[in-house]
Amino acid sequence: MSPTTTTVPAQLAQLMDGTALARRVAGETAARAAEVARRTGSAPCLATVLVGEDPASVTYVRMKRNRCTKAGIVSRHLALPAATTTEELVSTLRALSEDPTVHGILLQHPVGDHIDERAAFEAIAPEKDVDGVTLSSFAAMSFGRPGFVSCTPGGIMRLLDAYDVDLAGKRAVVVGRSAILGKPAGMLLLARDATVTYCHSRTADLSAHVREADVVVAAVGRPRLIRGEDVKPGAVVIDAGYNPGNVGDVDFDGALHRARLITPVPGGVGPMTIAVLLDQTVTAAERQLGLA
Amino acid sequence: MSPTTTTVPAQLAQLMDGTALARRVAGETAARAAEVARRTGSAPCLATVLVGEDPASVTYVRMKRNRCTKAGIVSRHLALPAATTTEELVSTLRALSEDPTVHGILLQHPVGDHIDERAAFEAIAPEKDVDGVTLSSFAAMSFGRPGFVSCTPGGIMRLLDAYDVDLAGKRAVVVGRSAILGKPAGMLLLARDATVTYCHSRTADLSAHVREADVVVAAVGRPRLIRGEDVKPGAVVIDAGYNPGNVGDVDFDGALHRARLITPVPGGVGPMTIAVLLDQTVTAAERQLGLA
Repeated sequence: MSPTTTTVPAQLAQLMDGTALARRVAGETAARAAEVARRTGSAPCLATVLVGEDPASVTYVRMKRNRCTKAGIVSRHLALPAATTTEELVSTLRALSEDPTVHGILLQHPVGDHIDERAAFEAIAPEKDVDGVTLSSFAAMSFGRPGFVSCTPGGIMRLLDAYDVDLAGKRAVVVGRSAILGKPAGMLLLARDATVTYCHSRTADLSAHVREADVVVAAVGRPRLIRGEDVKPGAVVIDAGYNPGNVGDVDFDGALHRARLITPVPGGVGPMTIAVLLDQTVTAAERQLGLA
Repeated sequence: MSPTTTTVPAQLAQLMDGTALARRVAGETAARAAEVARRTGSAPCLATVLVGEDPASVTYVRMKRNRCTKAGIVSRHLALPAATTTEELVSTLRALSEDPTVHGILLQHPVGDHIDERAAFEAIAPEKDVDGVTLSSFAAMSFGRPGFVSCTPGGIMRLLDAYDVDLAGKRAVVVGRSAILGKPAGMLLLARDATVTYCHSRTADLSAHVREADVVVAAVGRPRLIRGEDVKPGAVVIDAGYNPGNVGDVDFDGALHRARLITPVPGGVGPMTIAVLLDQTVTAAERQLGLA
């Protein structure tokens, strides 16, 4: 008999089921929202603000509003014309910040190029910043202070916790350094004692960093930027990228054969973002209504 | 003739002369302070607040006040008893924040354990936070927004610039993650397009990270934690550590034979910290007096 080559099927990574976890979180949120309504006579309220009619943004806002309704959160929507100025938007957000019937504020972004997005974000009162976009919220995340987290990084941390990923002393590589995703994700991982590396478009050898990473967070929006062959065997791969055609920032098929845990796209990080938004809205309401 | 062993003396690292650079910066600051006084009739004013009589803190504050005087900055000193409560300190800092004759505020820290240091820092108005300790200043540093930098990280960046250190795409390893040193230093390096890794007490293999670093920033306060033999040949080594006996966080003698540039201790980062403090005080005065 001639020797035969036996291909041992490699163990595939376990999928991190963001859809299921988000459903569980949403259930808890709904129960807490109902309790707020029972004790105060009014439900938590999230104000959503949309400038213009970008189809993707319209869809996202509609999804968020639908989830609010399902969770027993009142959704108040303000649709502003595309020509809205920074001053007008700031004024709208300040009014919502001062409105005691509104507990959380979401400004759907990106807003148009003619608007100073940072100025708009900063018009949101920190205690209503349930999307975690203000400088104040970022600093709070960075220093482990009370405050709301940016929703996608917050969702990532919940996924890691749900799958019992040990972070202390582990190498975490965050690819991307945006204000609402990469930067806060790194700070949250650092707060959990990971050794955190920020990689980005100017990083000289991304593959070398990925190859050393126990945890990879891809948060850059470039299809399959992270090569499957670079994933360290046994690593945890979090794909927060969203690209056309339901393609993430990670070569999923390649990574699947090397990672221990991996988020699918869709159904991984995405559902968690909205779950955290709703959860934080109820928390904001509890605090503002003196229940927490 | 028997073969002889020739020892080629290795090229030693160039020292980054913080004392000389600080002197140059202080000269520019003094000229600007004089201009403020000439145009407004009153000099920039830094309020220094010291709680208790810790000898090191007393010395630091005295040094800062002396430098103020030399630069033509009025130094107003408040010495509070060791038993000062958080509430009393916050109240003092709020009053200084509202006093139009004070342009910058320095709370000497660490304050006593019985005081909520963060609450005290946050009582400093961001526009007077010339020591860069507030959450607002940290977020501004992180996002490249207008604001004051934490003085030691700001001094490090000026040293790197003075010696034309190219940061874009380079690997920077920051050892330490304190709120006023490690975290902001990493954010400032990231803003300059370095690939930044935060290492700390829980990091599994510090040596491995240091060995890959083009730029090392040691900011942890543990004598000679960074081994000379781990320094990558040609690296830039910034030692922001201060330990008893003028010992830094880096094994200086060992690193000297491998680094391209290195800060001595003392005479490296230390002098730059005060230089940045005074520079930012004059900037604060210029802004508050409508000159900038």
